Order: sequence, then structure tokens, then C-alpha cells
Amino acid sequence: MSSFAIGVDLGGTNLRIAAIDESGSLLEKITMRTLVKEGPESVIDRMCAGINQLVGKYAGNSRLLGAGVGIPGIIEMRTGTLREAPNLPGWHDYAVRDVIEKRLGTPVILENDANAAALGETWLGAAKDVNNMLMVTLGTGVGGGIVLNGEIWHGMTGMAGELGHVTVDPNGPSCRCGSVGCVEQYASASAIVRMAREKIAGGHAPGMARFASSSDAEFNAKLIHNLAVQGDRAAREIFQTVGWALGILLADMVNALNLEMYVIGGGVAPSWEVFSPTMFQELRKRSLVYAATAPEDSDGKTGASAQVQPDVLIQHTIVTRAVLGSDAGLYGAARLPMTTHEGAEHAHIPASSE
Amino acid sequence: MSSFAIGVDLGGTNLRIAAIDESGSLLEKITMRTLVKEGPESVIDRMCAGINQLVGKYAGNSRLLGAGVGIPGIIEMRTGTLREAPNLPGWHDYAVRDVIEKRLGTPVILENDANAAALGETWLGAAKDVNNMLMVTLGTGVGGGIVLNGEIWHGMTGMAGELGHVTVDPNGPSCRCGSVGCVEQYASASAIVRMAREKIAGGHAPGMARFASSSDAEFNAKLIHNLAVQGDRAAREIFQTVGWALGILLADMVNALNLEMYVIGGGVAPSWEVFSPTMFQELRKRSLVYAATAPEDSDGKTGASAQVQPDVLIQHTIVTRAVLGSDAGLYGAARLPMTTHEGAEHAHIPASSE
Repeated sequence: MSSFAIGVDLGGTNLRIAAIDESGSLLEKITMRTLVKEGPESVIDRMCAGINQLVGKYAGNSRLLGAGVGIPGIIEMRTGTLREAPNLPGWHDYAVRDVIEKRLGTPVILENDANAAALGETWLGAAKDVNNMLMVTLGTGVGGGIVLNGEIWHGMTGMAGELGHVTVDPNGPSCRCGSVGCVEQYASASAIVRMAREKIAGGHAPGMARFASSSDAEFNAKLIHNLAVQGDRAAREIFQTVGWALGILLADMVNALNLEMYVIGGGVAPSWEVFSPTMFQELRKRSLVYAATAPEDSDGKTGASAQVQPDVLIQHTIVTRAVLGSDAGLYGAARLPMTTHEGAEHAHIPASSE
Repeated sequence: MSSFAIGVDLGGTNLRIAAIDESGSLLEKITMRTLVKEGPESVIDRMCAGINQLVGKYAGNSRLLGAGVGIPGIIEMRTGTLREAPNLPGWHDYAVRDVIEKRLGTPVILENDANAAALGETWLGAAKDVNNMLMVTLGTGVGGGIVLNGEIWHGMTGMAGELGHVTVDPNGPSCRCGSVGCVEQYASASAIVRMAREKIAGGHAPGMARFASSSDAEFNAKLIHNLAVQGDRAAREIFQTVGWALGILLADMVNALNLEMYVIGGGVAPSWEVFSPTMFQELRKRSLVYAATAPEDSDGKTGASAQVQPDVLIQHTIVTRAVLGSDAGLYGAARLPMTTHEGAEHAHIPASSE
């Protein structure tokens, strides 16, 4: 009998629930709006209904291994409490895991969404068969996940991997975390928009100024990316700043951890062509460990990991793009109960629709 | 029958060789000048003679577990080659391990000196019984070692832990590594002297100017420390900069790794009282993970880890001083063959003086 697991990606905008089998095939995916404003109880009600729906449908032919839930925020692993969750207002210090478990009547595994994405890319994506990797997720904010010896590195309280708040410039712009000059203030989608609006306000961006009156929904990182690709100088400078900040972050991490692979994912990652040249330039300059281990044809002209040979992985530091896109976290969440022993042992979600 | 191991600390100035038993007691220590100018072969000859002398003396009553050698430089673990060793001119790309093994006729374990110090502090010092820790060693340069699950984290090629080259200020002073604004340019003994000379040259340090004509051997970090303790404003500012840089480094590492303990060691560590206030201030500001896990009486007013209760270690991030002083690396080097299986199995150094 084959096995499957439920993966949930609870985002600030969308809530996605999937049944994924142990080989990584997607059986079915449910996507709905999160509707954060309705409050955590309502969101969790709908999430649990979705989980039960998929379990009822697939648990007959396949063995359920459990459920994993990826959440954007800092999770205290021991208690299953959200300690910080800027994209989920009303969830602060909320005992998410207990509430979900009570509703489902079975243990679930909670995970930070960027950690889940790192696990997904390690299972099925860019870092397949790589034991030690780090993933930076460039979205509205900047998240991170570190995988050591094939498992997510949680640290003491489950808060490891907060790569978005590594300092890039000690005198940089204020960050919502209370610090200044964090990676997130240079390499997130919101930072890209902020930098563009600053350039427009300073009169340095005639090409982008035409869009200045647009709402934030329209004047977004993708629009600025398109202008950069079309050759707009100010837009290109912004992505050079994205690459500069990522290069400093990666250099810090390569110097500290000397991992096999570093993966850049999230909504901003498709802008790889415009930010990666400065990223590699800065990385090479700032990391003697990278300089000593970079592949000869490096500076990731392709960014493709599929061509990397296994023997190259042993000796060279690879920096590349994520390949699973926005599904990385969903796959990673489903992977949690497949690799965590307690999850697998206790999985017996009652299928309400049976 | 009790067991012992040989630990070697091969520094740019001093070469120390010790026999240490498995409980961590020092049986005997030999200290000599390294005399780097004589070249690697001569240094290794004298090292091996010292090792054989100790083995001949103690191997009769006690079982020899092997020998570990701590070396200041970036070691490629697979080949046992020094890739970078600024304090050992003439040793660049030198196959240190092979040469020592050939001379001794037995395997030895090579380790970066800062990694060895981290292992020493974990075995017998500030981080005793702590499984996950990071140590920053403030000496002529700044080194680092990361211990995960009780073992040194080597990374892919053995180059992990290069914490001295984490970026603090992307526009800071040039570093010998090729980057700019590295931790080492703010928190090493040489950086302290450089900053003092800069202040004197700028006319901002009347108190220190009296010593400006001294040679570097006399106008050193310890003298500047003493002036700071006596209240000299410019000297105090320098140690505030040391603390500021360390705070940024620690914040980056706490955000990324969420370890139980961070230990500050090396020759500059005794200046803890003058640099740690700004270090903790910066750390708290820049790390939301630290702010969420800092002990209530934190900001390390004592810096003593002996009073830390085991249950505090589980939930709180501890930042503290090293306790083994300059012997940390020697103890850590001796610890290597006690914990590495291949070392213990093959130990049969012929005792030439028997």
C-alpha cells in the first residue's frame, strides 16, 4: 500500500492544502484565500475542513503518514506557538499547533514556511541529494532555511534560519524587526518597491516615474523587474542592490558554514538574471571560502543545478536558483511527517467525509 | 589502564605540545618558540621530537589515543593541506598532515586552531555540557569555531567557522582576505592598534598620543585596554567599536543558527568589561531571535557561565567569555583523537626515547 501526507502552506494571502505521495507526486491541491481578517479560528476551521476532505478522498487507497503545516513566522517549536508573524496579524503568541491538533484530533507538525521551502527543494528541487544546504526565500519579506545532514536545522528553540535579518549595512534603512540594514531591506519584493519609490522621489528614475502614481498592487517588484530587463538604468541599479545584499549574506554564510549548496527562491528569484551578477561579484570578493571552492565556470551563468555532476558537489560551493517555485513550501510541509518519526507514528486523522 | 592524547598548538609565535589525559588533566606541557622563519620542515622536526618525548614518558603507564594538531589557517580537511595561513609564511598550500604523519609514522588529526579552541571550551570550559555553540577567538586576527551536536562543524571542505570575515560594514576598512569591513578589522588585537593609531593621527586621542611613538610590541591592545579601563575616552571608544562589531557578528549568527551558547575567547577577551556593553546592546537590537531568548538578567553583566543552570541553557541564548584562556586550543587538539574514531584506532606513535 502506498503512502501519502498532507502539506499545508498557510500564507498571508493564500492558503493551500495538498495531498502528496511519498514519491513526491501531487495527488490533489486545494487553494483558497487565507482571509486573515476573519481571525485565526476561522482560518484554521477552513484549513481543517480542507485537510479532512483530502484525507477522506485518499486515505482509502493509501496510508496517511500525517500532516505538516508551513507558517510564515517565528515558531517556538517546543510549544508550537507563533512568536512573530508579521503577515498574520492576530496570530502573535498564538498556540497554533495546539489549536490545529485539537480541531483535527491528531498531531500535526508545524514548520516555518521558509524552512519548509528549504526541505521541499532538498527533497525534490535544486538541492536534491544535497545533504547540507541553505535556502534564501525572497518574498514580501526575506526568509531562510538551513538543512544540515538532510534535516532542517531548527536551533535551540526552532528559530534558526532568520536570514532576512542578517545585517548587510549597519547604517541601512530601518527594518520592521527593530534593527536597521537587514537583508530584507534590500532583497525583498517590498524593498524593491521602496527603493524604486525612493529613486522616483529623488528624481533619479524618469523611466519608472511614469508608474509612480500606480497603487502598490500594480507598481510591484515584477513591474520593476520588467523595466530592468528592458534596460531602464534606475531599475537595473535596484536589482544590483538586491544582488549586492544577497552577495554579502551569502558570503557571511559561506564563511561561517561552508555548505555544499545555497539556493535562492521565492517570488523575486525569477529576477536572477538581473541580480545575480552583482551577487556573485560580492560573494567572491567577501568570502575567501567561496573563492577557494567556487566552480570554475561559476558565477552561475545558467543558475541551473541539473547539470551539476555529483563529484562537483563534493568539492565546489554551488549557488543556484530554486526550481519548485511557489510549491516548494507545500512539498516541504508534506515531507515533514514522512521524515519525522513521531509524526508518522501518530497519524490517524479521522476522515470526516468518509 | 588510563588513556591520554597529545595536543599540539602550532601558533605563529609559540609552539606548544601537551600530554593530556582523558579526564582533561594536563600531564605535561612543552612550550617553545615556533621560529617560523626556519621553515615548515624544521618546525615539524622539533614538533615531532617534542611529541615523541612526551609519548616516551607517558605511554608506559597510560594508553596513547593519538595526536591532534591545531594550526592557524584554513585547512582543506580531505587532503590535510593548509590553504591559507597568514601567520605561517611559507606554509601556503603545504601538505602539513602528510609531512607530520610521515615523520611520526602514525596518523594525526589536523584542525584549525579556532575550531580546536571551540572544542576545548566545549570539553572543559565555558560550554561544558553544551551541545551547540559557537566560539569567536579574538587574537591577532579573528577566528571562529562552530560546534553542532557536540562536534566541530567542518562544512564541506573543512573551512567552516571563518567568522572573522563576516561583513560588519560593507564600506569598512580593507581586510587581508580581499574583502572590506570584516569583523577582523574591528575586533582583533591588530584592529585595536590600527584604530588607536588612526585616532592619534587624527588628533582625537591626546591620552594615547603619549604612547604613539612606541613600537607595535609595546603599543598594543593590552595597553589600549588599560587606558580604556582608566577612563581614556578615545580608548573606550575603540572598545565600543570592538563590541559593536561583535554584536553585529553575533546577531547574524544567532539569527541564522539559534544556538545555545556563544563564547568569546582569545587574547582580547579579557577586555570583556569594556567591549561587552555595546556588544549586548547591538546584539539585542539586531537579533529578534536573541531578544526572544535572552536571559532576563542578560547582557552578561558577569559573563560567567558557571552560574548558568542547566534548565536555563535549554531555553536561553547565553553569550559569555571563554574560561580556558590560551590553553583552549591545546586541550581541544588533544580532545580530537579522543572523539574521532579513526584517530583512536590507529594510534601507535613509536616512542623514540624508550
